[in-house]
Amino acid sequence: MQQLMTKESLDKFLNEEFPQVSKNFKILDVNDQSFSMLMYITEEHLRPGATVSGPTMFLLADVTFYLATLSIIGPKSLTVTTNCSINFLRKPNEKNLTSKARILKLGKTLSVGDVLIYSEDIDEPVAHASLTYSIPQK
Amino acid sequence: MQQLMTKESLDKFLNEEFPQVSKNFKILDVNDQSFSMLMYITEEHLRPGATVSGPTMFLLADVTFYLATLSIIGPKSLTVTTNCSINFLRKPNEKNLTSKARILKLGKTLSVGDVLIYSEDIDEPVAHASLTYSIPQK
Amino acid sequence: MQQLMTKESLDKFLNEEFPQVSKNFKILDVNDQSFSMLMYITEEHLRPGATVSGPTMFLLADVTFYLATLSIIGPKSLTVTTNCSINFLRKPNEKNLTSKARILKLGKTLSVGDVLIYSEDIDEPVAHASLTYSIPQK
Amino acid sequence: MQQLMTKESLDKFLNEEFPQVSKNFKILDVNDQSFSMLMYITEEHLRPGATVSGPTMFLLADVTFYLATLSIIGPKSLTVTTNCSINFLRKPNEKNLTSKARILKLGKTLSVGDVLIYSEDIDEPVAHASLTYSIPQK
Repeated sequence: MQQLMTKESLDKFLNEEFPQVSKNFKILDVNDQSFSMLMYITEEHLRPGATVSGPTMFLLADVTFYLATLSIIGPKSLTVTTNCSINFLRKPNEKNLTSKARILKLGKTLSVGDVLIYSEDIDEPVAHASLTYSIPQK
Repeated sequence: MQQLMTKESLDKFLNEEFPQVSKNFKILDVNDQSFSMLMYITEEHLRPGATVSGPTMFLLADVTFYLATLSIIGPKSLTVTTNCSINFLRKPNEKNLTSKARILKLGKTLSVGDVLIYSEDIDEPVAHASLTYSIPQK
Repeated sequence: MQQLMTKESLDKFLNEEFPQVSKNFKILDVNDQSFSMLMYITEEHLRPGATVSGPTMFLLADVTFYLATLSIIGPKSLTVTTNCSINFLRKPNEKNLTSKARILKLGKTLSVGDVLIYSEDIDEPVAHASLTYSIPQK
Repeated sequence: MQQLMTKESLDKFLNEEFPQVSKNFKILDVNDQSFSMLMYITEEHLRPGATVSGPTMFLLADVTFYLATLSIIGPKSLTVTTNCSINFLRKPNEKNLTSKARILKLGKTLSVGDVLIYSEDIDEPVAHASLTYSIPQK
């Protein structure tokens, strides 16, 4: 798929539109085969048992698939999640998370795909999310 | 279903185990037919378009079903979400959210059910989540 | 919600559009609060362990939510499922299944809701499905 | 992952345990990186609009992930689906389907992964399913 946004323009978009959360994220790689991010894990994301909370992994999956979609369709900030099904696979470490998105369908009104979430020092994925985004029509 | 925890013991549990997030939540109603909560929405939960973020609604669904399960099985803090499928139905207001959980199956190892999320001043639900929790075995 | 189709017109629609499967189903109840069906279970739907197969329960959930949606919007046969998340809760008997649908959102382009599946002689539901249908635009 | 069952032993298992449906399926490829199947589409699987029904794609996803799991853990026929979330991406042709499974976690009690479904003569996948199977404990 052809991209409309570069890593730099996505970084700028993230900072301007989501100032509350943008400091926690870094875009790692954007190309026509792959979209990956890093999330800095801090005290607020932890849970009993020395692990990262489920809602934190959901947030990373959501942001990753949103930006992966915008990298193709351009900066339509009102694109909204309509469905997410997430499986929690393993207990993450108290360390940073990374993510890798795959777009399975990009139609006029819907973007559908999935995101794998990884925890530093664990080889296998810690979560897998399938997401659907609705793309606003002009 | 018989309850093992009262509203008071659940409040205490939430404060002790989840000090990072407990101030945002209030348990509204606990009885054998119903479990409902309120989430105080603040600046950090908002998104462009004067609305509440998807991950915030996920967090409320997750906390609600967790506590609804513990109200029956007792304070097993290592109970973990294994799956959540959430549908976002309507745009919430920039106001507080409430939730209502329903337990569909409570077995020895799994608790399965769903949660409806409501936004103040909107009659119909803004999100619907189906969740599965894994219950730790001694 | 106001209904556009009666039980009789839905029965006729089912027979004409889905002749391969209509003989297996019976619409039990259609009103503005409730939509329920019965599925006749035969040899082809069984699985080892004296039970009904998962795909059979999926089929009943899919047909039930489809007809529940059409009962409100009218006979638009090209309405298609876009997402279904189903939890299998208990082992059904080798007996007929019944279903009960709930519509949570009916917008211009999407119908979202859930279906509970019951097995004869078991009080609690055997499966719970959340479904999204896409409604074709003229 | 190490395999406990070969293509031949899986074929035999499918014929013995699922005589109602085994004639519709063919195992294409079994190795430690990949598990793929073919489903023969006949009149009974079709729907209005010259396409294959959603429940047929669900059935293929379910059978594929079941056999992919058994290829690793051995012939435990009472392994059961606990959750499936399926996204329907594109309209299939009235032709045979193929599937490709990926196991993301294989623990003592749960197998979690996903399946892509393809329709002959269409390059992109027509459906994507995430599945969880519960593995019986002796």
